[in-house]
Amino acid sequence: VATADPGPGDGERAFIARLRDRLPVPPDGQHWIGDDAAVLADGLLLKTDVLVEGRHFDLAWSSPADVGFKALAVNLSDIAAMGGSPVAAVVALVVDPDRPGEADGVMAGAATAAAELRCPIVGGDTSNGPALVVAVAVLGRAPAGGPVLRSGARPGDLVVVTGEVGAAAAALRALQGGQREPSGLERLRRPVPRLAEGEAAAAAGATAMIDASDGLAADLRRLCDASGCAAVLDGGSIPRPPEVELDVALFGGDDYELVFTLPPQRWPQVGSWAHVPATVIGRVEPGPPVVRLGGPNGATPLEHGGFEHRIPGPG
Amino acid sequence: VATADPGPGDGERAFIARLRDRLPVPPDGQHWIGDDAAVLADGLLLKTDVLVEGRHFDLAWSSPADVGFKALAVNLSDIAAMGGSPVAAVVALVVDPDRPGEADGVMAGAATAAAELRCPIVGGDTSNGPALVVAVAVLGRAPAGGPVLRSGARPGDLVVVTGEVGAAAAALRALQGGQREPSGLERLRRPVPRLAEGEAAAAAGATAMIDASDGLAADLRRLCDASGCAAVLDGGSIPRPPEVELDVALFGGDDYELVFTLPPQRWPQVGSWAHVPATVIGRVEPGPPVVRLGGPNGATPLEHGGFEHRIPGPG
Repeated sequence: VATADPGPGDGERAFIARLRDRLPVPPDGQHWIGDDAAVLADGLLLKTDVLVEGRHFDLAWSSPADVGFKALAVNLSDIAAMGGSPVAAVVALVVDPDRPGEADGVMAGAATAAAELRCPIVGGDTSNGPALVVAVAVLGRAPAGGPVLRSGARPGDLVVVTGEVGAAAAALRALQGGQREPSGLERLRRPVPRLAEGEAAAAAGATAMIDASDGLAADLRRLCDASGCAAVLDGGSIPRPPEVELDVALFGGDDYELVFTLPPQRWPQVGSWAHVPATVIGRVEPGPPVVRLGGPNGATPLEHGGFEHRIPGPG
Repeated sequence: VATADPGPGDGERAFIARLRDRLPVPPDGQHWIGDDAAVLADGLLLKTDVLVEGRHFDLAWSSPADVGFKALAVNLSDIAAMGGSPVAAVVALVVDPDRPGEADGVMAGAATAAAELRCPIVGGDTSNGPALVVAVAVLGRAPAGGPVLRSGARPGDLVVVTGEVGAAAAALRALQGGQREPSGLERLRRPVPRLAEGEAAAAAGATAMIDASDGLAADLRRLCDASGCAAVLDGGSIPRPPEVELDVALFGGDDYELVFTLPPQRWPQVGSWAHVPATVIGRVEPGPPVVRLGGPNGATPLEHGGFEHRIPGPG
C-alpha cells in the first residue's frame, strides 16, 4: 500500500538507533528517543516532526494551508499518544523563493490548527530553499498519572483503536489512480490528532499507547517490540470505512488514530467516552513481539499474506 | 558585507509581522514572537532556528558535523540572549538521498554540541529532500529573576558586548575571496553560544539583551526598536580582531556574541566575570530608535557611511 508518508525505512531506523547510541542515558523517569515524544523532567514532553514536499505531501492535492495544518497536527498526535496535552509549538519553514506565497498559506493553516487544537504557535523561523519543508516542534505536558509509554503492554490487555483506520491511505491510492476528490481525502489533508482520546485513555488506565501514523500493523508492532509481547488482532473488528479493504486498514499510514492497550476490567471506563468511538480489536499475548491476525475470538492465530514479515521491525 | 546568513529580509520580516497579527495575544508574563526566544508559563523558553544548505552554510567550507554543531549552537544562542539555560533539544533533519552519509555527520556534530553545551538531544526526525536542512528546536529555562527581554533598555544604560565581533564575517569574506583557512573560520563553522555570559549578565541586572547573529548594528537596532530608545556607539571601543575592519565588525553577521544594556552602577558586577571579556561599547540615549556612531566619549553622534539607513528596521 502506497502512503504519503512511507514511514521510517531501514536506513532511517538504523540512523535513529545510531543516534540513540551516541547520546547519554536519560536520568531516571525521563525517556528520550524511542517513544512518540520525549519525556523530560516535570512531566514535560518534547517532539519534532518534519514534512517535506514530495515525500510527505503533494501540492497537487494538498494546499499549503493543508500542509501547515497537518504539520502541527501530526506533532500533536505524538503528544496525544503519550496521554499528554499541548503547551506550545514553534514552526520552522523553508519555502521555494519562486513560490513565496506558500509561506502565508502554510502559516494560515498552522494558525488554524493552533486555534482548533489549543496549541499556540509561539515562535518560528523561515528561510528560502529548494522545496517546501515544514518542521514543527511541540512542547506538551504529560498527564498527572505520568505519560503512557509504548512499553507497558502486558499479556491479557485489550488492544484498542480510536476512530477508523485506512481512510487516508485509501484516499491517497484513489488520488494516485486519478480520482479527484475521493472519500477520505480530508483525513489525508487535515488529520485530527486524538488529544482528548489520548488523555481519556491515560485516565482510564491505558498501559501502552502509540499513534498509527505509519499504519496500524507497523505501529502496533513497535508497541509490541517496546513491551516485549505479541498482539493478536481480530480482522473483522478493525474499524474502517465500508469502502476500505482490510489490507489498507492494516497497512495504510497517515491515520493518526491512537492504538492503546489496557486491562479488560478498565474497558468500561473507556466505553463512557463522549469522543470518537474506541474499538477493541484484539488482545495482548505472551511471546516474541509480533502482530498476528486471528479469528473473531482472537484465539487462533492465522498467517495473513505475509503479514508478519511485511511488518518492519524497529531497526 | 556578505554574510553566510544575511538575516531576515524585508519579506521575511513582513511575514513574521503578519504571523504575529494572526496569533492570539499571549497571557500576562508570556512573550511569544518578537524576542530571541518565546517566554512561556513557568519560565520555560522555546525557540526554533533552521539552517538551509546554500543559504546558511556552504559544505565547501563547513563539514556536515560543523553544520550539526552550529544548528544547535545558534538555537542556544537565543536561549543565552534571554539569560536562560538549556533544558533539551530536538533535531529535524532533511538529507539529500544522494548524500546519505551527511546525516551521521550532522548528528555527530549536534551530539558534540549537546555534550559541550549541556543541552541533551532528546528526539529527532529525519527525511529525504533536495537539500540539507537542519531545523533544531530548543527548550530552555529563564533565570530566577525572569528572562531578559529586548525591550528593557533605558536611557543612561551602558551598551555592552561579549567577546569580539566581526571574525566570522571576515572569515566568510576571505573564503569567498579564495583563501583556504582564514583566521576566524572556526567562529564561522562552530560558533559558541554565550550561555554562561548570558546568565551572568542577567544576574548582574542586564535590562535588555539580544544576540548579534545578524550583525552588531542590525541586532542592536532591534533592541532599540523594542525598547524605544537610541544607542550611541564608540567605534574605537568595539572589540574586534586586529585584522577585522570596523565596518565588518558592525555589519557582519554570524558572531553570536551577546549585546546587552545595563545601568552603569551594575557594571562592576559584570567586570568580575571569569568568562569571555565584556566590553562597554556605548550608551543608551533617549530618542527614536536608531544606532549612531559617536566619538570616544559617545557624545557627538557622527553619520557613518549611511550607517543609519543601512540598518534594517524590524518590519
